[in-house]
Amino acid sequence: MSTTQGKVITCKAAVAWAAKEPLVVEEIEVDPPKAGEVRIHILYTGICHTDEYTRSGNDPEGKFPAILGHEGAGIVESVGEGVTSVKPGDHVIPLYTAECRECKFCKSGKTNLCGKVRATQGQGLMPDGTSRFRARGQTVYHFMGTSTFSQYTVVADVSVVKVNDSAPFEKICLLGCGIPTAWGAVTKMPGDGVAGSNVAVFGCGCIGLGVINTARTVGASRIIAVDINPNKEAVARSFGATEFVNSKEIAQSGKRIQDYLVEITDGGPDFTFDCTGNVDVMRAALEAAHKGWGVCTVIGVAPAGAEISTRPFQLVTGRTWRGSAFGGVKGRTELPGLVDDYLAGKLEVDKYVTHSRALDEMNEGFHDLHTGDCIRCVVSMS
Amino acid sequence: MSTTQGKVITCKAAVAWAAKEPLVVEEIEVDPPKAGEVRIHILYTGICHTDEYTRSGNDPEGKFPAILGHEGAGIVESVGEGVTSVKPGDHVIPLYTAECRECKFCKSGKTNLCGKVRATQGQGLMPDGTSRFRARGQTVYHFMGTSTFSQYTVVADVSVVKVNDSAPFEKICLLGCGIPTAWGAVTKMPGDGVAGSNVAVFGCGCIGLGVINTARTVGASRIIAVDINPNKEAVARSFGATEFVNSKEIAQSGKRIQDYLVEITDGGPDFTFDCTGNVDVMRAALEAAHKGWGVCTVIGVAPAGAEISTRPFQLVTGRTWRGSAFGGVKGRTELPGLVDDYLAGKLEVDKYVTHSRALDEMNEGFHDLHTGDCIRCVVSMS
Repeated sequence: MSTTQGKVITCKAAVAWAAKEPLVVEEIEVDPPKAGEVRIHILYTGICHTDEYTRSGNDPEGKFPAILGHEGAGIVESVGEGVTSVKPGDHVIPLYTAECRECKFCKSGKTNLCGKVRATQGQGLMPDGTSRFRARGQTVYHFMGTSTFSQYTVVADVSVVKVNDSAPFEKICLLGCGIPTAWGAVTKMPGDGVAGSNVAVFGCGCIGLGVINTARTVGASRIIAVDINPNKEAVARSFGATEFVNSKEIAQSGKRIQDYLVEITDGGPDFTFDCTGNVDVMRAALEAAHKGWGVCTVIGVAPAGAEISTRPFQLVTGRTWRGSAFGGVKGRTELPGLVDDYLAGKLEVDKYVTHSRALDEMNEGFHDLHTGDCIRCVVSMS
Repeated sequence: MSTTQGKVITCKAAVAWAAKEPLVVEEIEVDPPKAGEVRIHILYTGICHTDEYTRSGNDPEGKFPAILGHEGAGIVESVGEGVTSVKPGDHVIPLYTAECRECKFCKSGKTNLCGKVRATQGQGLMPDGTSRFRARGQTVYHFMGTSTFSQYTVVADVSVVKVNDSAPFEKICLLGCGIPTAWGAVTKMPGDGVAGSNVAVFGCGCIGLGVINTARTVGASRIIAVDINPNKEAVARSFGATEFVNSKEIAQSGKRIQDYLVEITDGGPDFTFDCTGNVDVMRAALEAAHKGWGVCTVIGVAPAGAEISTRPFQLVTGRTWRGSAFGGVKGRTELPGLVDDYLAGKLEVDKYVTHSRALDEMNEGFHDLHTGDCIRCVVSMS
């Protein structure tokens, strides 16, 4: 039994006090887990564009002050009453997409979008409607049900999964978001899948590179990476892209990127992926997809209020527009296997970690995000 | 051998001389079929909203003068050189969606959108780039590769299918468009299909009623018909709707139809169908679909330039937007079986034919289309 069990823990966290402001690394208080909750000692966390989306003030549902972060890994410190799925000492990954296995969504077998803690999670609160965080005497909100930018966090028991304890935390934290999001968007494609197909991937950030890598793994024929940054070509090819298209150059030549892709692929890629969050790119990705059977998967998160548009003729002539959240992955059921795949050398993870930071450098980590050569920056929370 | 073989046939047709004008029933000349072509004596034709769409001038690609009509049935009069798939005397249905079995699309096994005659068909011409029709000394364009508003028409051999010769022409002409379009949109749904699911059908015209009827046939649980015309309730229920929602009333109560449907179905119908061609309805149909797995199928043809829009979040949270043309049905392969199903009492057709007209009353038939009680008006061409 840990000596901290049942007690308030004082530790360091990066607090987002207000939208658009840098985070402040300072001491906070973390309450013990209530019934059905788990307190986790977070060791490493990645920084994802979704954290930046909320920090920047672009997320209309962002609540402040809050502790952001949703791509972490750590060790269970203590559990609340009734928790049986994990125990103190377990190596775990917090899940922003919960898996209760009891709700209509979980039981449907058709989606990973568990409904159990959705409402309170969206409000920055634990399922009982309260927060476990305080700083400067104020209540601080949770974020995405995970809040991994704290040395200690509290999550619902349906929002955490035990994984192989021989896996390095500084790598498997990426299994909390980026890797499964990309992996699942490709491998959980309805129908016959992408093996042998032509694929176009818009955006060569962490998710785009993950999609490229997964497409290669499952045996796609042509993998066309699309980005506006020419420096992305080398990294895209190293992850498996067979071609690179600079969409800015295509636009400057007076051609629409979708028309160009249709041209060079004799009708369009079979599968396209938006990994940008830009609604114009989402449209291009749909319209580039092959007539008759092309499938466009939207993964990126768009700015608040932004809408996608197209002529319905694009759908009537056989294109499908779909989306994917956390890659359709059921975290508690599937992450342990993905971690094992990583340990067995079957799943690439290491290569995504290009930058490392200490907790005190959290804001520098956010700056890293915007440099073209950063795939993921991992922050050591100790 | 017919006495007309190889000769120009003079017969009556309803000619669309210009957009927005009524059709003119008059004598035209029909050239004999060239190599790979088939001349058909059309006996009956339905009138579909797509004919009206072009006649009304809303179709930006409409060409005039033209002979419209794409939902017909008749007897092969003669065939051009090299035609082996049909012979004079065969009872046939012309196909606006060809099936060559040789192109990339046909061979894909993933779509019914044959590419063989697409380009010339869109230009109102036969595959050799010319027309077989003349009236008042002028060349008259073909339409959708079928032009069934003529007593004799010429089509490509990939655009016609022989069917059971005991089937009544005045009924099976609907197999040329409306019935397969609705039937296939439901039965060819990717995934596990609609059996046992909740379905919402927007628009209770011929296609909407066909979707309702097919959903009932395959075993959908709840079938919610949505229309702005309260008089549609009785007919929708007679085709299998379990509920009827007057969307105009919902709007007047200050509620969005998608929110209302989500409310009454505990999360939204599993499958929604747009059978209206209205882009606002297409959006509502997508957004009404159940989070996590809802599929919205667009069937209707939208006005030129109209676009569909939604927040990409709707897709990322598990909804799929797809479309269907001619129900995804491969005409030459599948229509004979559908005609047999009709003859065996397994496929409803008769009930859709609510109005009958003579060729001279073609314009009255177009007026019938706009009356709320007309599902299909069938025109006798003799």
